[in-house]
Amino acid sequence: MNPPTASVRTTPSAAPTPDRHGTATGYARQLVRKHRPTLERALETIRTRAHWTPYPEDPQAYGPDGAEAGEAAFGRSLHRHFALDQPGRDGVVGPSPAEGGERSPYGPELGISYDHHDPAVLLPAMRAAMRRWNEAAVWTRAAVCAEILARANARSHEFAQAAAHTSGLGDVLAFRAGAVHAQDRGLEAVAHAVAEQTRLPDTAAWRKPQAGARPFVVDKGFTLRPRGVSLLIGDGVLPAWHGYPGLFASLATGNAVLVKPHPRAVLPLALTVGVARDVLRETGFDPDLVCLAPERPGEELARTLATHPDVRIVDYAGSAAFGSWLTAHARQAQVFTGPSAVRGLLIESTAHYRDMLADLAFGLALHSGRLRTTPRNLLIPRSGIPTDEGHKTYPEVVADLGAALGTLLADDGEASALLGAPLGPEVLARVDEAASGVLGEPAVRPRAVRHPRHPDAVLRTPAVVTLDAGRAEDLATLSAGWPGPVFFAVAVDSAAAGIELLTRTAREQGALSAVACTTSPDVEAALTDACADAGITLSPNLRGNRYLTRSAVHSDPHGTGLGPAADAVHRDASFVTRRFRTLGVRRLGAPG
Amino acid sequence: MNPPTASVRTTPSAAPTPDRHGTATGYARQLVRKHRPTLERALETIRTRAHWTPYPEDPQAYGPDGAEAGEAAFGRSLHRHFALDQPGRDGVVGPSPAEGGERSPYGPELGISYDHHDPAVLLPAMRAAMRRWNEAAVWTRAAVCAEILARANARSHEFAQAAAHTSGLGDVLAFRAGAVHAQDRGLEAVAHAVAEQTRLPDTAAWRKPQAGARPFVVDKGFTLRPRGVSLLIGDGVLPAWHGYPGLFASLATGNAVLVKPHPRAVLPLALTVGVARDVLRETGFDPDLVCLAPERPGEELARTLATHPDVRIVDYAGSAAFGSWLTAHARQAQVFTGPSAVRGLLIESTAHYRDMLADLAFGLALHSGRLRTTPRNLLIPRSGIPTDEGHKTYPEVVADLGAALGTLLADDGEASALLGAPLGPEVLARVDEAASGVLGEPAVRPRAVRHPRHPDAVLRTPAVVTLDAGRAEDLATLSAGWPGPVFFAVAVDSAAAGIELLTRTAREQGALSAVACTTSPDVEAALTDACADAGITLSPNLRGNRYLTRSAVHSDPHGTGLGPAADAVHRDASFVTRRFRTLGVRRLGAPG
Repeated sequence: MNPPTASVRTTPSAAPTPDRHGTATGYARQLVRKHRPTLERALETIRTRAHWTPYPEDPQAYGPDGAEAGEAAFGRSLHRHFALDQPGRDGVVGPSPAEGGERSPYGPELGISYDHHDPAVLLPAMRAAMRRWNEAAVWTRAAVCAEILARANARSHEFAQAAAHTSGLGDVLAFRAGAVHAQDRGLEAVAHAVAEQTRLPDTAAWRKPQAGARPFVVDKGFTLRPRGVSLLIGDGVLPAWHGYPGLFASLATGNAVLVKPHPRAVLPLALTVGVARDVLRETGFDPDLVCLAPERPGEELARTLATHPDVRIVDYAGSAAFGSWLTAHARQAQVFTGPSAVRGLLIESTAHYRDMLADLAFGLALHSGRLRTTPRNLLIPRSGIPTDEGHKTYPEVVADLGAALGTLLADDGEASALLGAPLGPEVLARVDEAASGVLGEPAVRPRAVRHPRHPDAVLRTPAVVTLDAGRAEDLATLSAGWPGPVFFAVAVDSAAAGIELLTRTAREQGALSAVACTTSPDVEAALTDACADAGITLSPNLRGNRYLTRSAVHSDPHGTGLGPAADAVHRDASFVTRRFRTLGVRRLGAPG
Repeated sequence: MNPPTASVRTTPSAAPTPDRHGTATGYARQLVRKHRPTLERALETIRTRAHWTPYPEDPQAYGPDGAEAGEAAFGRSLHRHFALDQPGRDGVVGPSPAEGGERSPYGPELGISYDHHDPAVLLPAMRAAMRRWNEAAVWTRAAVCAEILARANARSHEFAQAAAHTSGLGDVLAFRAGAVHAQDRGLEAVAHAVAEQTRLPDTAAWRKPQAGARPFVVDKGFTLRPRGVSLLIGDGVLPAWHGYPGLFASLATGNAVLVKPHPRAVLPLALTVGVARDVLRETGFDPDLVCLAPERPGEELARTLATHPDVRIVDYAGSAAFGSWLTAHARQAQVFTGPSAVRGLLIESTAHYRDMLADLAFGLALHSGRLRTTPRNLLIPRSGIPTDEGHKTYPEVVADLGAALGTLLADDGEASALLGAPLGPEVLARVDEAASGVLGEPAVRPRAVRHPRHPDAVLRTPAVVTLDAGRAEDLATLSAGWPGPVFFAVAVDSAAAGIELLTRTAREQGALSAVACTTSPDVEAALTDACADAGITLSPNLRGNRYLTRSAVHSDPHGTGLGPAADAVHRDASFVTRRFRTLGVRRLGAPG
């Protein structure tokens, strides 16, 4: 890569222009003043890739009573109808699970019902809402988005509760991925939207010299046009974290956004839509710019909406199979998919054996293997690894990892916070299947953990199954994308064989990134080259913070779009530029 | 739109960094110095949207003997084998048309044969060539591209001859679209590639504060990765103008480019590939980064190549049908299509009647309707139009246009230069069909024009057929995309009806832009809104320069990607950003 060039520098900072058609209300103008410093800082940060967030990830930062107030607010959503006052209501979804209502992974039904809508009424209303939104200035739209995020941020404890009781996230992940980190990702998308929409002048005089005559002058005006209605198909595990980038990128570029939540995780996105509609209404825009479309059981509403001619953008992070279906069928739309992935970790050598084991144990326990960024396959040379505590054989490494997991998860309360909520019955059955030895030797067996606040809820600690890369059936097992907290310690012939297996799996199954533990510069160099060729981000020897699984907002591209793992890449101009277009109007100018 | 923000400004200009792996040869470094001012100016121009070109469009600027030398150089290509020394040769294409060779629209066979290649050998060689190219700095790749363009520019007269004798372009268009304007489009793509590839720092230290501990620091390195082999499927009419943007955008972002020319227009792209290979070889890169793949008659090589797993980018500007096929089938690739379009022109009123007629006549005659930007449907209120010469009835406008065409094309020599080469037999048959009255009244009948330098070549002046928007069969006719110099004067009920028809046709058939003649601010405002809704660029009341059909390099987006006309938009970041990806490597940094 290269130094930035002076030729693309922009003019000094200027006050935001008023809206083209004067549509911004006083409150909207006030929001531009309020959020401009935050947006400016976000714009700076996407350029420098530094660490920064306006949304503290420490739950204590939200006041001494924050957690309690959030829990109470969450409680007020339960056992009632969630009204959004959208057009085209034609029925109700929920409250019972048989009617499409949600059930907490901890057992109880949430008892919430939602309105169901007729797309033939809802979509035209959303299209109509776009006109005024489009006439607003880029900074006005961005400030409205920032206000939505700020209000969601103030309710982070409530959003965390909603995430815990729908997706079954543990406390830490529920507060982060269910609230503040999702807000980070949303703001990042808004910043990219501002940057891309303000890159060019909106007028230009074009003078072409003419031999023997006065120049030919054309006055050009350029306007931005959104694509149309943007559909967000929510996922069941991280609906906010996966959903906010597309939602805010589309909204900030002038599109309306229809949110089709996952049937098991409606509430987090319903709360989001509610906040968005409040802010839009208060700023004088049409709240129907952001609508929720819950579905009846078995309705397959995502397919209906994704192929509707009014839907011009689709965001989806979920199964590779449905991602492929969308790409094939939603031909009228720009489709952003981030399908599933298998993540590999090479353990070749270490100068910090105990730390490495503790980090690994933490990484495997956190979220019960629910995230696509969790390492699944631990590739270890069968001859063992050199460490600062001497040579460790392959069985020793696996046993020591089991001991580290045992230490980390000894206390049921702490274990519950890390593991998250109980697994669903299907996933639990698969974990028990893995523990039974049908896949390979279960070198680390899962333990049942009782949740302190939910005595009936039973969780499982991670299972680590040993496989051998030399056996074809084991290769099939490690490529299969096992759900839940089942991990594979895979014996490989050598570091080179491990690198080959890691990158081959990434190419075939997709991977967001790879992790490695090695003290060898040669191995690291070979891995760096191989990951670059395979199109995956590499994190060698990260340790100490224990968050092996993270990609940093504003800084790391999340996905590369090079492998089969994901087409959409947050932190990439095309994530935003594909959502709007530039139109010109050209008029004859005065010859100068 | 909004003013640029200070937050996205970049650091001051710096000298280009040396290549990361020191791969640039002395000559490549020399080219960076040579072309940096041109590239800096291009970077500035894509930001300001001003007029600028380093490639003079005046043929006289290439020396008093330029035309003669170009003709001689073209002559030296005839009746010989065009050798490019690419790997995997497995046969020959041409020289006879039955064997896939080209024939001049003026009659004679070009007699050129080309090598045919086995993709199973060619594509791996191209992939291998990419490694070293990728290790080069962004500015090195850009300078190599600029040198290719500079050498093509020096041979513009030769390229123009090649364009005239393959695509049948007239003298003016052959020199512009066949040479200098295509070079402009290529340089524009290179400038966008530099801008997008240098937007972010290639290293960053990420410091996250930790409560009660030293910050968590991650040192991040980011590298750019190309998609893979980029396939350019050339078209038969404007292979250079349509092809250079994708070719240079892909090459400048690190991809190899395989050029599959249209069977009737191989030479223009073969000459381009030859120049590119020369420059690559001389700068120490692998010439197989740019290869030509001519096809045997009936081979359908484009389909084979477009769906090959090694091909990760496809550029195509041609029929909507094949564009749709590519989008549906080349699923492993990023597909950039610019399918066909129908263009409308509203004639509602004018204060410059004679000028308008002259401009119109020029626009209809130029290129014999070969370009997608030529207005095809002239929408005129059936009650006539107010003008500076009084009210003109609909029949008067059509008759006066016929008279203007008669005046413009009275001289066979001048007419030939404007009209271009003879039409192919299929198109000629369609023109004669239109002239026979089967579509509607041929209000302006085509005249046979004898080409002064090619006495056997017979051209046709434009036919203008009157249609009525009130008749269903006439609506079908004007939507059908008639080939060649057949134009429709369409009687509409009112300006509003004309606007409705113009934008409906654009929505259904696609349109790159619309043109209008009106003195009414209300009509102009209604048209501006309607075109914005339909996603087409509007040029109201352009006149005097007579190039109604032009979109300006560096300045106008060519297409919007909003309608069905085109997915690819030159002059748009996503035209470049979809061709490469950013990969990160993250290492633990020293706590600061």
